[in-house]
Amino acid sequence: MTLAAAEPATALPAIEQQHRDQRHYPHGVAFMDGQYLPMSEAKVSVLDWGFLHSDATYDTVHVWDGRFFRLDLHIDRFFRGMEKLRMKLPYNSSEIEKILSTCVALSGHKSAYVEMICTRGGSPNFSRDPRQSENRFIAFAVPFGSVANKEQLERGLHVAISNTVRIPPKSIDPTIKNYHWLDLVKGLFDAYDYGAETALIVDINDNIAEGPGFNVFTVKGGRLKTPAYGVLAGITRQTVFDLCGELRLSVSAGDIDRDELKDSDEVFITSTAGGIMPVSKIDETVVGDGKVGALTRQLTDLYWEKHADPAWSTAVNYA
Amino acid sequence: MTLAAAEPATALPAIEQQHRDQRHYPHGVAFMDGQYLPMSEAKVSVLDWGFLHSDATYDTVHVWDGRFFRLDLHIDRFFRGMEKLRMKLPYNSSEIEKILSTCVALSGHKSAYVEMICTRGGSPNFSRDPRQSENRFIAFAVPFGSVANKEQLERGLHVAISNTVRIPPKSIDPTIKNYHWLDLVKGLFDAYDYGAETALIVDINDNIAEGPGFNVFTVKGGRLKTPAYGVLAGITRQTVFDLCGELRLSVSAGDIDRDELKDSDEVFITSTAGGIMPVSKIDETVVGDGKVGALTRQLTDLYWEKHADPAWSTAVNYA
Repeated sequence: MTLAAAEPATALPAIEQQHRDQRHYPHGVAFMDGQYLPMSEAKVSVLDWGFLHSDATYDTVHVWDGRFFRLDLHIDRFFRGMEKLRMKLPYNSSEIEKILSTCVALSGHKSAYVEMICTRGGSPNFSRDPRQSENRFIAFAVPFGSVANKEQLERGLHVAISNTVRIPPKSIDPTIKNYHWLDLVKGLFDAYDYGAETALIVDINDNIAEGPGFNVFTVKGGRLKTPAYGVLAGITRQTVFDLCGELRLSVSAGDIDRDELKDSDEVFITSTAGGIMPVSKIDETVVGDGKVGALTRQLTDLYWEKHADPAWSTAVNYA
Repeated sequence: MTLAAAEPATALPAIEQQHRDQRHYPHGVAFMDGQYLPMSEAKVSVLDWGFLHSDATYDTVHVWDGRFFRLDLHIDRFFRGMEKLRMKLPYNSSEIEKILSTCVALSGHKSAYVEMICTRGGSPNFSRDPRQSENRFIAFAVPFGSVANKEQLERGLHVAISNTVRIPPKSIDPTIKNYHWLDLVKGLFDAYDYGAETALIVDINDNIAEGPGFNVFTVKGGRLKTPAYGVLAGITRQTVFDLCGELRLSVSAGDIDRDELKDSDEVFITSTAGGIMPVSKIDETVVGDGKVGALTRQLTDLYWEKHADPAWSTAVNYA
């Protein structure tokens, strides 16, 4: 003992039994392993393949004024993603709907950002074979967030086009909503370096693909268009198609190159995190007259109106 | 209270304060936030961008017979990856070396798989701007694992070539070791469907790229070759180049198509998780005479010999 005391530098530190986490977490409620928990408890093991291999799929839906918006579409996409990744959970879609609703109700948030996640998980015998993994479900509800803040929604976003190429469909099926974002993060840093607020990245043919968490639309001569190739089929993107149907506006999906994008009358982006958001500047080019366009505004207004429509939304039971 | 008791179906469940995790974790020790912890405590928030955006880099090094193998190369690559991702940690390389060594020593494992991770983390004000994130360091040591088991090491692995395309360098810089693995996981499922044991996936030109966690080498007429384009520059791959230097063997990096791969005299894969591992069958083609090749065996023997060489390895101080 005297020897050990004389050589403190070589002594090993103790293994502590519990992690002390000083980080702040947003107010919200998570569901894991049958429990409803504060966000500070919503953690996955670093050994979960969902972390170590980003082997996971997810979906996000939002609650506005106490109502889920198009929850059925989000849950359907989540189940399609799991099937493509050969993952299985012990919950059906109505059970997941109930879990999500309970997370929101327990959080008390009237406007919330709600995420459902399925990770590959891990296998009880630590096998590297993904077929032996027990897949894992996590859900949580936190305060609603938006890609664009209030000022940006009023004046339009400044977007820069990055040369980073969106991960192509031959590598990752983009219809599986996934966490492979390093291309989008690179695009975002490129945009910041340029002095812009967010980014669009390109597809393998140098056409416009999408941005970090959003799809993009152009308006030219009253017609709308959005990239078709290699992009996430966003639910808000789908919603724009549906709203255009109601408004009898022409909308199509197809290649959009940089020049066509910049030559648009109006440009907007779409995301569950913010809805329909105007773009007023692309690189150094002012879009249209530099103000939020008339069709963008009309679609945005109708988009938010639909949040109270029982055909498009579902009430959370706060009990 | 009587009313609530009469309507239990509408009552919300309680929010519990602590997650009860029934999962099993391998024996090992992790380091996070200044603490050394059992693996059951090594968890990251689902809100960490390292999980939500796979915005992270990492490196793995192994310990064999109480010695780290080429630890300096792994730590150097880890720091280069962080710099490319614009991440910063409050530790320099010698501090990280000490942390990793302490994890191993505390675990008691004489043969260990050791991982160092830097995630984007999160920002204290929950901003989506990655520049505002506090990056996060995690390290852990668990028992040594191998891509190939004992039987496979003796008879050679059966590999299938998948049509899945490795995420191209224009999307993700492959020199940043990253967790974007869904292409490799898809390749693995393709290989299982085929009846093989593991997979090789291709690059955008349909040449051979790499497999889930490993590089590949061919031997033909005494010359070695490995894919050059779009692959992780593995440390074990580098080690094969160094060993070939000592053995005065010719080795080069360049395109290898499917036919060239199948027409090889010998094929082996390389990974920190297992070292140099023989391949005896590719799709339906038997490689060479179907046995572990002479050069593969010579390199494998020298590879393991180097684990005791102080020029290639560093002793763990188990104290």
